[in-house]
Amino acid sequence: MEPWPGPGGELFLANQETVMSFVSHVECTVCGQHHDAHRLLTVCEKCGQMLAARYDTDRVRAGVTREALRMRPPGMYRFRELTPLDDLEEPVTLGEGSTPLLALPRLARHFGLDRLWAKDEGQNPTGSFKARGLGMAVTRARTLGARGLVIPSAGNAGGAAAVYGARSGLPVAVIVPRATPAGAIAEAQIAGAHVFTVEGSIADAGKVVAKAARAVGWFDLSTLKEPYRLEGKKTMGLELAEQLGWRMPDVLLYPTGGGTGLVGIPKGYEELKAIGWLSGPLPRIYAIQAEGCAPVVKAFHDGAENTEPFPNPATNAPGLRVPSPFAGRQMLRILRETKGGAVAVSEPAIVEAQHLVARTEGIWAMPEAAALVTALGILKDRGEVTRDTEVVMVFTGAGIKYLPPPLPSPVDLTGSPDEAAATVQRVLAASAR
Amino acid sequence: MEPWPGPGGELFLANQETVMSFVSHVECTVCGQHHDAHRLLTVCEKCGQMLAARYDTDRVRAGVTREALRMRPPGMYRFRELTPLDDLEEPVTLGEGSTPLLALPRLARHFGLDRLWAKDEGQNPTGSFKARGLGMAVTRARTLGARGLVIPSAGNAGGAAAVYGARSGLPVAVIVPRATPAGAIAEAQIAGAHVFTVEGSIADAGKVVAKAARAVGWFDLSTLKEPYRLEGKKTMGLELAEQLGWRMPDVLLYPTGGGTGLVGIPKGYEELKAIGWLSGPLPRIYAIQAEGCAPVVKAFHDGAENTEPFPNPATNAPGLRVPSPFAGRQMLRILRETKGGAVAVSEPAIVEAQHLVARTEGIWAMPEAAALVTALGILKDRGEVTRDTEVVMVFTGAGIKYLPPPLPSPVDLTGSPDEAAATVQRVLAASAR
Repeated sequence: MEPWPGPGGELFLANQETVMSFVSHVECTVCGQHHDAHRLLTVCEKCGQMLAARYDTDRVRAGVTREALRMRPPGMYRFRELTPLDDLEEPVTLGEGSTPLLALPRLARHFGLDRLWAKDEGQNPTGSFKARGLGMAVTRARTLGARGLVIPSAGNAGGAAAVYGARSGLPVAVIVPRATPAGAIAEAQIAGAHVFTVEGSIADAGKVVAKAARAVGWFDLSTLKEPYRLEGKKTMGLELAEQLGWRMPDVLLYPTGGGTGLVGIPKGYEELKAIGWLSGPLPRIYAIQAEGCAPVVKAFHDGAENTEPFPNPATNAPGLRVPSPFAGRQMLRILRETKGGAVAVSEPAIVEAQHLVARTEGIWAMPEAAALVTALGILKDRGEVTRDTEVVMVFTGAGIKYLPPPLPSPVDLTGSPDEAAATVQRVLAASAR
Repeated sequence: MEPWPGPGGELFLANQETVMSFVSHVECTVCGQHHDAHRLLTVCEKCGQMLAARYDTDRVRAGVTREALRMRPPGMYRFRELTPLDDLEEPVTLGEGSTPLLALPRLARHFGLDRLWAKDEGQNPTGSFKARGLGMAVTRARTLGARGLVIPSAGNAGGAAAVYGARSGLPVAVIVPRATPAGAIAEAQIAGAHVFTVEGSIADAGKVVAKAARAVGWFDLSTLKEPYRLEGKKTMGLELAEQLGWRMPDVLLYPTGGGTGLVGIPKGYEELKAIGWLSGPLPRIYAIQAEGCAPVVKAFHDGAENTEPFPNPATNAPGLRVPSPFAGRQMLRILRETKGGAVAVSEPAIVEAQHLVARTEGIWAMPEAAALVTALGILKDRGEVTRDTEVVMVFTGAGIKYLPPPLPSPVDLTGSPDEAAATVQRVLAASAR
């Protein structure tokens, strides 16, 4: 029996069949132009739009079965045949992926639902789903010759880029808005990244990154401006399919900033359909945003083909503060094709939802994730979700990464242990009334 | 093909063989007195010492194979036959366990080692290994009729007790020292727990808990004063065995506060030996503590059979601030029987190690975990670890849970994107010189 893999992908090297690349090419999602996957790619060289990796589905189908997959250890590289890795390429990994899909029975009852799930991405390295995309992108960038990495971030992507940079030996520069949570900045700095702050939003950081990357000769890891963060995020869709027993839910709620996961999850589902492991319609996919920064919601309801820059973006969910997502067009297409939608929620409702899900299910989710719980209530009220609708929420990260919501001070105990115990008894009795 | 489990253990219910209990009894670790596992137990009813669950190894051996285990989804309940769950008992789970065992090639080179691993327990729910013990203990306490839970904590255990309490529907009170990290207090509060602070250390909190639990009629979850936190922590040993291909490392370093994991990991190894899945000597186990609170280190070097209360306990690694561990006797026996040892490290060295492991391997570990890296250097210098010694470090939690170590301010960028990019270029060039 072979050992589970360390981070070098030993499992796969022990099995000759699975160390090959199954990528056929990289394709523009708008004009269809083909690109060679063995070069360090950014956006379409013809039209400047977003690229995506394509697989030789016949070879994937012949190369792996669901039973064989089941024998593999956890982590996102267990889906090796649907990752963009080269022949023999070893991933830069910290064990990301294989996060649990948790049933939420109490929260389901609260909303009058029968089947409600959360994929808890807070259990990734760095406490967020960003580990998947950045782990994959750093792996490919290193292999394809990047000398260093530059990334704009609302917080979590920068921390993830920094730790995978450290793990790979590549230097990293992170540019974030001044309002970025201190924990995310510390996470990037302790891993040795150079962190810079700018006035404004991630859009302003992105402008500096584009210029700085060119000036320094380092690789720009901006969301969907290279094709491999998408391939990492896509693994959430692959895992969801396996975790529900090779079927899809009715509705999928996704907190939407840059939208890599919103584009990635259906990409994963489509690839599994192409190899015959899944069938039927995709879930109705909903983009959830904050009222203070809702470019996708606005464009969806306006019937627009693409998003427009959202003015004065403001929300306490930093991952949702993306006023001009590069893949607005692709996201809107997915929301419409799957008959989903887009919902904006208020800041107080996000905080309330954060408390609700923590108290009912024991999950301290980021505000970005808590926004989904608020949206779920709205969709239930509107009748877009009914009792028998099976709903999956993607909880993108752990609440511990930001300052907590307002909470009471703990009760300080003084005096002897007997006196302190009496105080405890009194407080608990009062709260039970 | 059956689905992966949600938190209700559906996987196991789908397979009649694995829903039974394999526990034979609960035994005192000192006087050997047997106790009925179907009652809510605390310490030995005869001598007051620590209890441990015992399994019917013949039935376990007949009930599961390593091949069958390999087919099961991740999480600590995949080892169902070696958990203390009753027939048909459904775990209170948030997906804890199956954390990655990460090879640390750069850190190994730094210390002149060939094989160095870290088990990254920061990827559990609540970002620490405490999820395992509390998940298991809350599961059993709920089943056996507890009406509420009280726990003393240095921080992480309280947060974990609170979230599993919320998940199970049981009310929780957490009593912590005033110096407890704010994140841990917030984690407990947002999950709805009642949090109390006391002057002093976890020993002082423990005295109040004992009295308050009696007064309120809630169950006392103090470390090793009930038998099931140990069974949760034990799963780290079960996983380590599987992850290394059913063998044990030469040396295991463990950050030692209450010591549940230090006692639990070898318990897991011994049970696997009893069912024939492992053979050979246990690793040399080392307890790592902070110089400011090192009762186990002191007792080990004094040749004492038990620890003595460590005066004026002080360290920035709150999980190590346990001046009077209840299982001191059991820990010292393990350190001696495995020919391991005990090492105390300084506070500045812990901070330095925290930076070292983050920069070389991309892991922001808690100070408790970073202490192991310091100790590794000491053991290498002493010749107790040599180039060919295979070492496993148990990284008990994520650094994000506490305030970060001292870090420089990020560089604030002003002016146009061009000016900002020029600043980035200048800073990176200067740092490269």
